[in-house]
Amino acid sequence: MTRTVAIVLFENAEELDWAGPWEVFTMLKQLEPGSCEVVSVSERGGEVRCAKGLRVLADYDFSTCPAPDVVLVPGGHGTRKEMENPAMLAFVRQAAKTAEVMTSVCTGSFVLWGAGLLAGKRATTHWGSMEYLRKCEGVTVVEERWVDEGAVITAAGVSAGIDMSLHLVGKLWSPLIARRVQKAMEYFPEPPYGDVPVTWG
Amino acid sequence: MTRTVAIVLFENAEELDWAGPWEVFTMLKQLEPGSCEVVSVSERGGEVRCAKGLRVLADYDFSTCPAPDVVLVPGGHGTRKEMENPAMLAFVRQAAKTAEVMTSVCTGSFVLWGAGLLAGKRATTHWGSMEYLRKCEGVTVVEERWVDEGAVITAAGVSAGIDMSLHLVGKLWSPLIARRVQKAMEYFPEPPYGDVPVTWG
Repeated sequence: MTRTVAIVLFENAEELDWAGPWEVFTMLKQLEPGSCEVVSVSERGGEVRCAKGLRVLADYDFSTCPAPDVVLVPGGHGTRKEMENPAMLAFVRQAAKTAEVMTSVCTGSFVLWGAGLLAGKRATTHWGSMEYLRKCEGVTVVEERWVDEGAVITAAGVSAGIDMSLHLVGKLWSPLIARRVQKAMEYFPEPPYGDVPVTWG
Repeated sequence: MTRTVAIVLFENAEELDWAGPWEVFTMLKQLEPGSCEVVSVSERGGEVRCAKGLRVLADYDFSTCPAPDVVLVPGGHGTRKEMENPAMLAFVRQAAKTAEVMTSVCTGSFVLWGAGLLAGKRATTHWGSMEYLRKCEGVTVVEERWVDEGAVITAAGVSAGIDMSLHLVGKLWSPLIARRVQKAMEYFPEPPYGDVPVTWG
């Protein structure tokens, strides 16, 4: 089974939030041809300007995107607008009807919440937005690197999307291939100032 | 002093190789306005198709790029061509004359070698290309996450660019701001299958 992984892009999406998962899933495709197709999609397709100024071209718009099996919604300050954007919420709701897993990174969880996907669920977000997520009705906030609720998985801030995506590869494909992806990405982190708690610094 | 950080893009550059450092340096700029400007540059400017199919728009071409203080050359299978591309090598050599630091991620080290910047230096690359780097004249190969030789810093594969860039922020700006960047990126990795040696899997 070839799964379609859709990476959702929008104005002011945080770059690494989606680029980390993009690397994980496209590496999976390279190592295991036929395992997945990875596409980028935005409301109108074409050029999207990200939160830190990177300009990327989305492969599809919301109307032309192939029905996805996995959806990833990144964070970034653009989510403040997107969590109330009717076109975005309609796309996410529609995708959720047939997708195996809906995922978010960082403040992307607010978009999933806006689409009604976090009602009665445990979820997480960037540490700096945790208090705000606590105000979202129906959500049980959990301070973990990622929170797997089956059909919905939310990840913590920015770089956490890499860990969450590797977890998802292990779950939907196999732990063996997830390890091969991790090795191909040489994802054996050595943060120069240590791998410290989020409360630090 | 506002430093200019130039991220070099080319056809088939590996996405996370440059997107990780892009996130680090642009986060630095956001947290410390005036600390740096981050630009992307390619031979001809405009659309660049990366190794895993991501299409991005480079801010500058080689002739219009502001003189950089820090240069980052990513890896990816495009480096096989770029390490012999006269336009790329001329750009890298010219930049090295005035830049404070020239850096590479993954097989980007072969481009630095092609430009003559690794002669007599210790350097590293992706684990899968280590044997090939050993054949490059004048290079002492070191299997570390990153190798800091002062004016030249090379990093290991793909995700290692994040660690190397945080190290560089700590060195050129300050350890305190590097920690703040790390925290803002929530870079407290939890690889789901462990942070294991590269020989694993």
